Amino acid sequence: MTTEDAPLGLPLPLSGATRMYAIVGDPIDQAGSPGLFNQAFRRVGAHAVLVPMHVAPADLSTLIRTFRATLNWDGLVVTVPHKVAVADLLDEVGSSAERTGAVNAIRKEGDRLIGDNFDGTGFVEGLRAKGHDLRQRSVLLIGAGGAGRAVAHALADAAVSRIDIYDIDTARAATLATAVATSTGILVSSVANADVVGHDLIVNCAPTGGKLEIDLTRAGSDTLVVDIVLKPAITPLLLAARSRGLIVHEGIHMLSGQIETVLRFFSLT
Amino acid sequence: MTTEDAPLGLPLPLSGATRMYAIVGDPIDQAGSPGLFNQAFRRVGAHAVLVPMHVAPADLSTLIRTFRATLNWDGLVVTVPHKVAVADLLDEVGSSAERTGAVNAIRKEGDRLIGDNFDGTGFVEGLRAKGHDLRQRSVLLIGAGGAGRAVAHALADAAVSRIDIYDIDTARAATLATAVATSTGILVSSVANADVVGHDLIVNCAPTGGKLEIDLTRAGSDTLVVDIVLKPAITPLLLAARSRGLIVHEGIHMLSGQIETVLRFFSLT
Repeated sequence: MTTEDAPLGLPLPLSGATRMYAIVGDPIDQAGSPGLFNQAFRRVGAHAVLVPMHVAPADLSTLIRTFRATLNWDGLVVTVPHKVAVADLLDEVGSSAERTGAVNAIRKEGDRLIGDNFDGTGFVEGLRAKGHDLRQRSVLLIGAGGAGRAVAHALADAAVSRIDIYDIDTARAATLATAVATSTGILVSSVANADVVGHDLIVNCAPTGGKLEIDLTRAGSDTLVVDIVLKPAITPLLLAARSRGLIVHEGIHMLSGQIETVLRFFSLT
Repeated sequence: MTTEDAPLGLPLPLSGATRMYAIVGDPIDQAGSPGLFNQAFRRVGAHAVLVPMHVAPADLSTLIRTFRATLNWDGLVVTVPHKVAVADLLDEVGSSAERTGAVNAIRKEGDRLIGDNFDGTGFVEGLRAKGHDLRQRSVLLIGAGGAGRAVAHALADAAVSRIDIYDIDTARAATLATAVATSTGILVSSVANADVVGHDLIVNCAPTGGKLEIDLTRAGSDTLVVDIVLKPAITPLLLAARSRGLIVHEGIHMLSGQIETVLRFFSLT
């Protein structure tokens, strides 16, 4: 069977010589990477497969030891809740991981593990691919965890005018606001309430974001509402936004927006 | 995409909900299980994928810890050189693993790992599927390692008349001969040379079997020559047998002969 014969989205036929990739998370059912990466591997002709691995935080270091020891396992994608904790288990991290404190992809160089973070560039690229311009937009960002940090820095790099950051953990929101303001010069504040008034863009980066009571009745009619949660594709927040006629942008675009960059990071293109 | 739409031999499209299986070996390129199991998973409609993992003996226990800790990883196939060593890392082994001291498949029951050995039944089933009757045959068996042990017991169960066992490690050959003779009552001996005279069936179960000098000029014209080595499919031994007009039987049949039984062991059928 040749690459051309197989339907897109399927891995190539596997053999003992297939190179292994994985995504680790807890939970893992919602992960979009197995679908997107295996399709991308086929497109670029990589004889590789990416599998989901459901591992609890207490077992993350064991998984990383096995990743190091498995000679045909070339790369690892990292999702919630491991993005911050995994950084300490690596030999080196890139600049995006450095400033966000979070890693979402790891490759091998000899016996060294190198991590970096592509969520921020994926987030911005995903919005651009759908025609959304970020320049001079005012943003309400919900969630200052691993993904929230990556998104905040990327928004600042994309020249938004202002970011208000809300997190249940107010100290975490304040720390992120200070870090982004310091490194970029953009106006960034932590806020005590997720108040949508005055914002062009509302971005949820909290796994529990769908449960937040966000009052969209106060949002302007041209507000863009973004949720990075993957499952369900239309989260309660996006559903509420739709019912008010607002523009919505689903979580899968942050992932599809970073596939090309991560393939290069994995040396597959 | 439905199961029917995808060509045989490919895994189903993967998602975060795909269940994981693996084969561990060192080396791993030659492994036939990824091809055969992924095809079988599609046939039975299992939303699962089996990936190759290349792990050295020193790292086997680390791999098993990760197998235990990964919640969506349901089963492991074990190949050379790990079949004997892995038995000590499990919570329970079945009767075939017990008598051979070797494990080639592991499943989970709650937090327990259960291993068993399907090489012997696969070997006999693979021969039967090609129309080869084993009853009353005299066998020269080369190799008394994990696979050789499984094959020796299965040959005895299949009512061959006699087994001569040759191994570079003569003590290992003698130990296996005694074990099989004791448990089955068949005439089993260890031999100091791989002499084909008087045998209907010559079976190579040694990874290095292809390098052995086996003098096939002395074999009867209806001798069946079997090699369980998978790669190359036609090993030097089988090539030599073919050039003398003898009947040959390739290693892949031992593997395909056990797929159905291992699927049941994995609770997939």
